[in-house]
Amino acid sequence: MIGQYQKDCQRRVDTCLTELFVAPLEPLARLYEAMRYSVMNGGKRVRPLLVYAGCEALSGNPAQADGAACAVELIHAYSLVHDDLPAMDDDDLRRGQPTTHKAFDEACAILAGDGLQSLAFEVLAAERHNPADPALRLRMLSVLARAAGPFGMVGGQAIDLGAVGHKLDRHALEQMHRHKTGALIEASVLLGALASGKASETELAALREYARAIGLAFQVQDDILDVESDTATLGKTQGADIARDKPTYPALLGLEQAKLYACELHEQAQQSLSDFGEKAAALRALARYIIERRN
Amino acid sequence: MIGQYQKDCQRRVDTCLTELFVAPLEPLARLYEAMRYSVMNGGKRVRPLLVYAGCEALSGNPAQADGAACAVELIHAYSLVHDDLPAMDDDDLRRGQPTTHKAFDEACAILAGDGLQSLAFEVLAAERHNPADPALRLRMLSVLARAAGPFGMVGGQAIDLGAVGHKLDRHALEQMHRHKTGALIEASVLLGALASGKASETELAALREYARAIGLAFQVQDDILDVESDTATLGKTQGADIARDKPTYPALLGLEQAKLYACELHEQAQQSLSDFGEKAAALRALARYIIERRN
Repeated sequence: MIGQYQKDCQRRVDTCLTELFVAPLEPLARLYEAMRYSVMNGGKRVRPLLVYAGCEALSGNPAQADGAACAVELIHAYSLVHDDLPAMDDDDLRRGQPTTHKAFDEACAILAGDGLQSLAFEVLAAERHNPADPALRLRMLSVLARAAGPFGMVGGQAIDLGAVGHKLDRHALEQMHRHKTGALIEASVLLGALASGKASETELAALREYARAIGLAFQVQDDILDVESDTATLGKTQGADIARDKPTYPALLGLEQAKLYACELHEQAQQSLSDFGEKAAALRALARYIIERRN
Repeated sequence: MIGQYQKDCQRRVDTCLTELFVAPLEPLARLYEAMRYSVMNGGKRVRPLLVYAGCEALSGNPAQADGAACAVELIHAYSLVHDDLPAMDDDDLRRGQPTTHKAFDEACAILAGDGLQSLAFEVLAAERHNPADPALRLRMLSVLARAAGPFGMVGGQAIDLGAVGHKLDRHALEQMHRHKTGALIEASVLLGALASGKASETELAALREYARAIGLAFQVQDDILDVESDTATLGKTQGADIARDKPTYPALLGLEQAKLYACELHEQAQQSLSDFGEKAAALRALARYIIERRN
């Protein structure tokens, strides 16, 4: 069920994203091509899906959430481009394709990432694809800027880098995940809800709780799959996290306790949606998918 | 005269900027320290000065322009951090101090730059230090995002990188400068004017013309000084641009024609301020300073 919804969201956001990568002038062609390459790569668009599902939970019009869906994906894409750089994770491949600095060059990848970040804010500030109310758009911009920046995603990457060679305890591991991936996941759901123009503060608080739970559940399940799944199902090397001495939930809690924790987080996520009724079906299905997935 | 005004603007914006670099959590201390290091470096704060002077030209309250002054400096600072990276200009020193990737490390410099960009938009989206009207703040955010991104500064850096080893003609050189430095200079003046809450579209158009003229005049004068000034006065190696085979106005037009062009641009800048009266004194003094400076 989530499969078809995911494909619809992907198609929807990809249509909007494509528009952005037409170079306005010839000497900018290569930069725009590098940005396009970094974004239009068959990604699953999980964050845009969360935007649309958040909007739907408030009976919002998805056309008002297109800007937010693009913006979160642009931020996500830029973070991957910079993460893959030689000075960071030094990855040559992403989804089986050369990373941006391999397909272009390092300078171009740095600039493409920088440009994608600016573009995210430009898209969300525009009237097109967003709610008409300026105060609402402004609030959405604040949410995105904080989630993307040093207090959110960038901060999480810094915590992660600083943790190399250190043993993280459970609290520190959670703090890292909450920043590195959790902040943008939370922002995605909130932006979708805000884009509806109808979210109360109580509803936003409930959705924030939902998003925090699924963000963490996703990480815990990722760690479990790294232990349990075979390399073919996973599409990456099984046991890679443990081999790299990365702190994981199974390593910290034991495999059985980690599984219990994932279930607990899933339960929390479902609970926090209790007042939303049928409109939150997509959010519910996504939470289930996160702990049931095998890769 | 501009000297005292510049010092006042510098003090004013530095007070606001300092507040931003207090890490909210211990594991973020190093990232915040790298961001602080990259911004609080005794910079002349030319762009914040343009914000305040633009606000003053519309009799605005400078307290409403503080957010914009911080935001343009944060964008400028992030661009320098990324420009200095080994994959870009590979500079070890800036203003006589180790560049951010030398003082910290490359990964930290990439993240600090990324974080400074997010922070710029966060600061401008906030009510504090900005005009209260959400529609106005939103317009200011659009102006900044466009000037910072692929259509502006980032695009200019890409054009510059793409030009290595090519001979740029006058049109291409101008296009590069208009993007690389001109876009943010223009945005600075416009943001200041918008922050006043009183700018008409006619006034904004006049200020845009002023900003374009001084942005270009600054580049032309820079090229002239590279030929004429001695290394001691300049604080960098005389003739460095020519030695690096960088295209310059004296090389393209000849020294005398380049000087005439700088005067012409200065004249244009002054002309475009003709309807502003005494309130534009700071903008006028800055235009004069740009073509009279010896370093």
